[in-house]
Amino acid sequence: MRVLVVNPNTTASMTAQIRVAAEAAAGPGTVVDCVNPAMGPASIEGYYDEAFALPGLIEEMIAGERRGADAAVIACFDDTGLDAARTALTIPVVGICEAALAAAGMLATRISVVTTLARSIAPIEGLVRRYGFSERARVHAVDIPVLGLEEAGADDLLRGAVREAIAADHSDAVVLGCAGMARLGAELTAEFGMPVVDGVGAAVRFAEALAALGLSTSKVGAYATPLPKRYTGALAPFAPGARPLAAE
Amino acid sequence: MRVLVVNPNTTASMTAQIRVAAEAAAGPGTVVDCVNPAMGPASIEGYYDEAFALPGLIEEMIAGERRGADAAVIACFDDTGLDAARTALTIPVVGICEAALAAAGMLATRISVVTTLARSIAPIEGLVRRYGFSERARVHAVDIPVLGLEEAGADDLLRGAVREAIAADHSDAVVLGCAGMARLGAELTAEFGMPVVDGVGAAVRFAEALAALGLSTSKVGAYATPLPKRYTGALAPFAPGARPLAAE
Amino acid sequence: MRVLVVNPNTTASMTAQIRVAAEAAAGPGTVVDCVNPAMGPASIEGYYDEAFALPGLIEEMIAGERRGADAAVIACFDDTGLDAARTALTIPVVGICEAALAAAGMLATRISVVTTLARSIAPIEGLVRRYGFSERARVHAVDIPVLGLEEAGADDLLRGAVREAIAADHSDAVVLGCAGMARLGAELTAEFGMPVVDGVGAAVRFAEALAALGLSTSKVGAYATPLPKRYTGALAPFAPGARPLAAE
Amino acid sequence: MRVLVVNPNTTASMTAQIRVAAEAAAGPGTVVDCVNPAMGPASIEGYYDEAFALPGLIEEMIAGERRGADAAVIACFDDTGLDAARTALTIPVVGICEAALAAAGMLATRISVVTTLARSIAPIEGLVRRYGFSERARVHAVDIPVLGLEEAGADDLLRGAVREAIAADHSDAVVLGCAGMARLGAELTAEFGMPVVDGVGAAVRFAEALAALGLSTSKVGAYATPLPKRYTGALAPFAPGARPLAAE
Amino acid sequence: MRVLVVNPNTTASMTAQIRVAAEAAAGPGTVVDCVNPAMGPASIEGYYDEAFALPGLIEEMIAGERRGADAAVIACFDDTGLDAARTALTIPVVGICEAALAAAGMLATRISVVTTLARSIAPIEGLVRRYGFSERARVHAVDIPVLGLEEAGADDLLRGAVREAIAADHSDAVVLGCAGMARLGAELTAEFGMPVVDGVGAAVRFAEALAALGLSTSKVGAYATPLPKRYTGALAPFAPGARPLAAE
Amino acid sequence: MRVLVVNPNTTASMTAQIRVAAEAAAGPGTVVDCVNPAMGPASIEGYYDEAFALPGLIEEMIAGERRGADAAVIACFDDTGLDAARTALTIPVVGICEAALAAAGMLATRISVVTTLARSIAPIEGLVRRYGFSERARVHAVDIPVLGLEEAGADDLLRGAVREAIAADHSDAVVLGCAGMARLGAELTAEFGMPVVDGVGAAVRFAEALAALGLSTSKVGAYATPLPKRYTGALAPFAPGARPLAAE
Repeated sequence: MRVLVVNPNTTASMTAQIRVAAEAAAGPGTVVDCVNPAMGPASIEGYYDEAFALPGLIEEMIAGERRGADAAVIACFDDTGLDAARTALTIPVVGICEAALAAAGMLATRISVVTTLARSIAPIEGLVRRYGFSERARVHAVDIPVLGLEEAGADDLLRGAVREAIAADHSDAVVLGCAGMARLGAELTAEFGMPVVDGVGAAVRFAEALAALGLSTSKVGAYATPLPKRYTGALAPFAPGARPLAAE
Repeated sequence: MRVLVVNPNTTASMTAQIRVAAEAAAGPGTVVDCVNPAMGPASIEGYYDEAFALPGLIEEMIAGERRGADAAVIACFDDTGLDAARTALTIPVVGICEAALAAAGMLATRISVVTTLARSIAPIEGLVRRYGFSERARVHAVDIPVLGLEEAGADDLLRGAVREAIAADHSDAVVLGCAGMARLGAELTAEFGMPVVDGVGAAVRFAEALAALGLSTSKVGAYATPLPKRYTGALAPFAPGARPLAAE
Repeated sequence: MRVLVVNPNTTASMTAQIRVAAEAAAGPGTVVDCVNPAMGPASIEGYYDEAFALPGLIEEMIAGERRGADAAVIACFDDTGLDAARTALTIPVVGICEAALAAAGMLATRISVVTTLARSIAPIEGLVRRYGFSERARVHAVDIPVLGLEEAGADDLLRGAVREAIAADHSDAVVLGCAGMARLGAELTAEFGMPVVDGVGAAVRFAEALAALGLSTSKVGAYATPLPKRYTGALAPFAPGARPLAAE
Repeated sequence: MRVLVVNPNTTASMTAQIRVAAEAAAGPGTVVDCVNPAMGPASIEGYYDEAFALPGLIEEMIAGERRGADAAVIACFDDTGLDAARTALTIPVVGICEAALAAAGMLATRISVVTTLARSIAPIEGLVRRYGFSERARVHAVDIPVLGLEEAGADDLLRGAVREAIAADHSDAVVLGCAGMARLGAELTAEFGMPVVDGVGAAVRFAEALAALGLSTSKVGAYATPLPKRYTGALAPFAPGARPLAAE
Repeated sequence: MRVLVVNPNTTASMTAQIRVAAEAAAGPGTVVDCVNPAMGPASIEGYYDEAFALPGLIEEMIAGERRGADAAVIACFDDTGLDAARTALTIPVVGICEAALAAAGMLATRISVVTTLARSIAPIEGLVRRYGFSERARVHAVDIPVLGLEEAGADDLLRGAVREAIAADHSDAVVLGCAGMARLGAELTAEFGMPVVDGVGAAVRFAEALAALGLSTSKVGAYATPLPKRYTGALAPFAPGARPLAAE
Repeated sequence: MRVLVVNPNTTASMTAQIRVAAEAAAGPGTVVDCVNPAMGPASIEGYYDEAFALPGLIEEMIAGERRGADAAVIACFDDTGLDAARTALTIPVVGICEAALAAAGMLATRISVVTTLARSIAPIEGLVRRYGFSERARVHAVDIPVLGLEEAGADDLLRGAVREAIAADHSDAVVLGCAGMARLGAELTAEFGMPVVDGVGAAVRFAEALAALGLSTSKVGAYATPLPKRYTGALAPFAPGARPLAAE
């Protein structure tokens, strides 16, 4: 089994962290192919960055499938480009917000999501609604930029925000709302005495699961293969039916 | 990894079928411990049977955890006793309706669920709502009793019902709404050219995933360990804090 | 008119209290037949107890209908076994949570529900959603066990919790979230100057109403009479079509 | 017990029919005070008529409470003026759509509402949402004007529409969507073999129930007594705090 | 372009204020025809006043259309009589709550609505739901009567309430929940650094827009022209098909 | 007033059509600045094309604001990039799906949306939910590609699909679900006798309205100005805080 994990931002140190979390979570015998695009934003904080992460992300998704991936994970908590990736690929594609909520929902009844910046609350609330968790999950921000999560003191601020969120929501599970928090899942689970779910690990495992079950993305509805058509400008290589991308 | 799969009805031939599907889906090295209760209904068709399946189901769940299960699956599409089992156990517990909807939701946008009898539509619609799929899934019945699924002609009736449901719902994925349909998932996936998800396999894989991630059922909210108290009559052995059940 | 009221736990002193409330609420000429099962948990606090209350509860429901009940009430705020009871009986069956919310909804716009333990919040929120009150009702816990409601000081704690809930929710009605609080409805209505609804009384009156209107439980859908089938073990006597239960 | 029933249209023959249904449904010893306003539309078919039915309706509600009513019913399926009446009175006020849905919801899982004209579908769907039945009830029209319900052939058209609605909705209960259909409830219940609920009877019984329980309309929120203020023109007598209305 | 703006209460000084706001918002060349009924309540505070504002409001709406209006606005934040007015007129009719929410929803993600009295919260929450903003908007009250908005100190109380609402809701836009607050929109927008939307201006502009696009109220569904019928008493002149109202 | 209208696909003939519709709808004195990106897909049919339309679209949005636009419209019925554009600009930005639904919702109660290809149904249903129209609007496809709308016979196919949608939905308004259908709005409104809303015109007018009211996009929440950060590769020029884009 080969699982593609794409960090849709271009920060290699964050990709390295995500790789560690993904490999720790992956099943025996699974190869994790963890990459980030060469083009795009250094971090994804809100709708704007998300838009410009898409071309690089999709390119890496397509390239990863060509390298032989059996399933794929998008390792940004906005589930950036999830629908577009599903049209582009045939293998299952799982988002880390989607996976984290699904996992938490199987373990607890009320969920606190703690993300980085306040500007990400509304996009994540949109995902909470989309995945059917409106009545069970609330979204909070710790007010640290994505790339600030590794700085001294960040972990303590996150701990504090998690504690406040649990108290405010009377929740019995927490979801870490950024791929950059992946390394803290196990530690905080122990510390808070309830499931603290990291989406990277959950998505890797769920993606493996779908592939192992022989399932692939549906190609008869909204995720049908993109229709061949002319693309122009810098993005022309992405035109469906155009000459192949990365792998050549 | 050891995954407990409990068929909550008492029909051993159906348990055998479920075991085959569970073992086919389980990851390498996973032992499937597939059982059914000695007490309760021969099949679960509607709310009444569900009520009387609970004591035997919970007994088997507790016994299975004591035998060393790392995760558990309830193999009835009503997700019979899912909440009660979560309070009784510490390992993750996954329902097959829950898992099938989660899987289908990661592969497609609109889902047709096809179950056995019309009387099961309302209970399953309740689950569809609970799991957040109201806007994406519709429930249909093929009008075959659970124990009639193995009879001659049943597969063709099911095929017809799936075809009609896809047409009516403009769906791009199907969920098989009974554990007794598990053997047909792969075959119908090929035949209909879209994901046809069997919940038994999905639940086994998702339960494995949760356990592998080191997650367990939250014990601080609605799934907290049952409070010690007096139980009377035939069910006294089930009192929380009472002498152990089956295994002893 | 004969109204069956079943307290699904096995604590006779609580049944006695419920009987008083039910008789106080019943219409002129109505006989209240108030019982509790011989088997099952001494109180229902969360999903686990609920599961083990079901067989005893259903047995009493069936026996009560055979004794001539025209309508039935399930006197636990989890509306334990409501759907299963409806399949088993033909007379109308009303839950006290269901009745209390319906009553409060006819008298006010925003409703605070105050129950006993925090672990019951999620199950009751599930009922709030099911009955269509998600946008109007919030659920709170006073943090007293069900059987502690009669102890000294409990009433004052409950008063405090009601006061806080009204303030937090800006509510104009309160629902008492446990059958054991029934005796306090009238007193708290006067004290708080707004409807404080006890579900036992409301359910008795609404059950009477349905029977008086000549209505009975629908037998053509999800509440259809259970199909005859084999039940095994201690619960075999409950098999639909089996030899009669309690009354013989 | 004295129950006020106000038909908000001005057609005395329809009021007479409603009185028959209300008296048939009322409990022993209950006096039904059934009236209609002197001013307003002859029938209520859509939003416009509803608006002009309000002043006459409220006048009759206030007058009826002054005559000693213990509870009140608004006998139009649009639940015309329900909120305004609740601010004006202290006794409980029940709408027939509200009561019929509540009753049907205690007896069945899926509900077909059959009303008169297509223009009433949207207003009634608004009520279905308000009362929390969006997921359980669908609204249909038979395409007969309100005052045409008594003409030859109307009953057969209604029967046909009920039959079609049940088939389309896979429903297990029907609600008659007009006060003018009240006389048919029992007959159609027998004919269709499932609850066919008339709102007039249900509302009378539920209103009685609330009054008997000692409950009244909440006066601390949106139903608080109207603030004294100047009203001008023909409606000046309705000003809160003005000289009394009809009865004096 | 001629836009009719009806203040449904009878307070001329408030109408004058609304006229100023409407004219300030109207497009070049638009004539604002701003009136209030001669009959009805001096202010609309809750459901009761709303009911008695309807006949006068509808009369002015019809008269305004006869005077040549191309579009109409109902200038009360309860959107009093919006549906009835749409059946009575052919030109587009826009409510100020409806317009303010639509505008705010195009500029921001989370909306705080600040209205006058607590008793108006529930009616406005009903509108928030109706217009599809349940997940994005919260309603607050400043606790000043409608006609008290012009008194000394009222603006400061409103400012305080807006500040608290933004903090509580983490909102990025505010909607002023009373036509009497219209003059403060621009000032508070500057002061709070986020859109503070006045519904009067928004509704005037949106009504102009609909008329300019050549659109009118749909006459084939729930807004179909009222059916001719007999009205009696003081409201007889309003009978659809009766002799014309105001203009003659 | 200057309104920017960006067709996010690269087909100039479609931009020309949109310009005609936008200019026809614009208010007196409004200059319409209608453009399309140089880079990206020739048409937007589903999630994949949408992703690759974003960079070119955002570039044109930013360039248009720099040219002096007072408000902006995104002229694709998927409301492609709406949230990202709102973070990038300060002027109001309106999507044509958003505007069309808002307009139709002010004129009718039930809405049929008719789009081009079936693969666009799910994305548009996502918008219907987002804008709060789930209970009022249904989405249908005519099964013509976007660039096939101008071919012979396409209009008749569309007419047929509209007719079928109205019949299936019992709708009283139609929304044309593609910018390429804009020219047909008035004609079909006349033909079907109900509002047939074109989103291009509606969005131009609503965008004008917001700008005229002095409102701009909120910059304190999810639409806050993107944070300065490094972007790499072909998209580096889009980095917030980077050297200006197109206009230089």
